[in-house]
Amino acid sequence: MATEWSTFAEFCPSRTVLDCIAEKWVALVLGRLAQRPHRFNELRRDVGGISQKMLSQTLKSLERKGLVTRRAFATVPVTVEYSITPLGQTLANVLDQVRGWAETNIEQVEAAERAYDERVTE
Amino acid sequence: MATEWSTFAEFCPSRTVLDCIAEKWVALVLGRLAQRPHRFNELRRDVGGISQKMLSQTLKSLERKGLVTRRAFATVPVTVEYSITPLGQTLANVLDQVRGWAETNIEQVEAAERAYDERVTE
Repeated sequence: MATEWSTFAEFCPSRTVLDCIAEKWVALVLGRLAQRPHRFNELRRDVGGISQKMLSQTLKSLERKGLVTRRAFATVPVTVEYSITPLGQTLANVLDQVRGWAETNIEQVEAAERAYDERVTE
Repeated sequence: MATEWSTFAEFCPSRTVLDCIAEKWVALVLGRLAQRPHRFNELRRDVGGISQKMLSQTLKSLERKGLVTRRAFATVPVTVEYSITPLGQTLANVLDQVRGWAETNIEQVEAAERAYDERVTE
C-alpha cells in the first residue's frame, strides 16, 4: 500500500529512493535510455560532462534498482548494451518533465537570479 | 525559445538549473510549501531529517531562483514566513510526481535490489 510510505519521513525507505532518483545524472542517463538502448561509450558521449566513474556508478545503481538492464554480447571485444526496463520507463516519464521544466523555465529563473543579486548587492 | 536549451549539454545553463532542482531537499521543501506557507521551524519539523544549514541553503537558493518568497513580519521576535511563487508551484507539481514515484514504487525497487544482491553475492 503506497499510502504507508512518505518521503517526508527521514527514515522511510522511499526517502532513500527519492535521494537516488532526484539527481541530475539519473534524469539524463534515463532520458537517453528511454530513447533507445545505448552502449557505455555512447552514453558518455550523449550525456555531456558525465565522467566514466559517475556513469558507471549511475548505471550500476539503476541496474540494481531494476530500472536498467545490462546485456553483454560475446563479441571481440565484448559489447555491453544498456536498456531501460518498463519500471525505468515510468520513472523516465516523470524525470523527463523535470528536465523539461529546467529547459522551459531557464530564462525566467535567470532573470529572477539577476534581480535577486541586484537587490542583495545594493 | 525553449528548444535552444538542452540539459544534456554540459555547459547549457538549463543543466545548472537541473542540477539545483533535481535534488531531494528541493522536492521536499517545495512539496511542503505547495501545501501552505511555512515558518522556518515548521519546515524543519515537517521535512524530516533536514539540518538547519541545509534548510537555510535550500530556501535561499529557491528564493534567488524566484520559486519561493520570504516575508518578514515586525513581531518580537521577527516572524519570517516562506511561501511558494506561481513559478515555484509549476515546479512543485512536477517534483510531486517524483516523490510520488518513490512512494509508489519503493516495494518494487527494494525487491529488485534484493534480487540483484543475491545474484552478485552468489
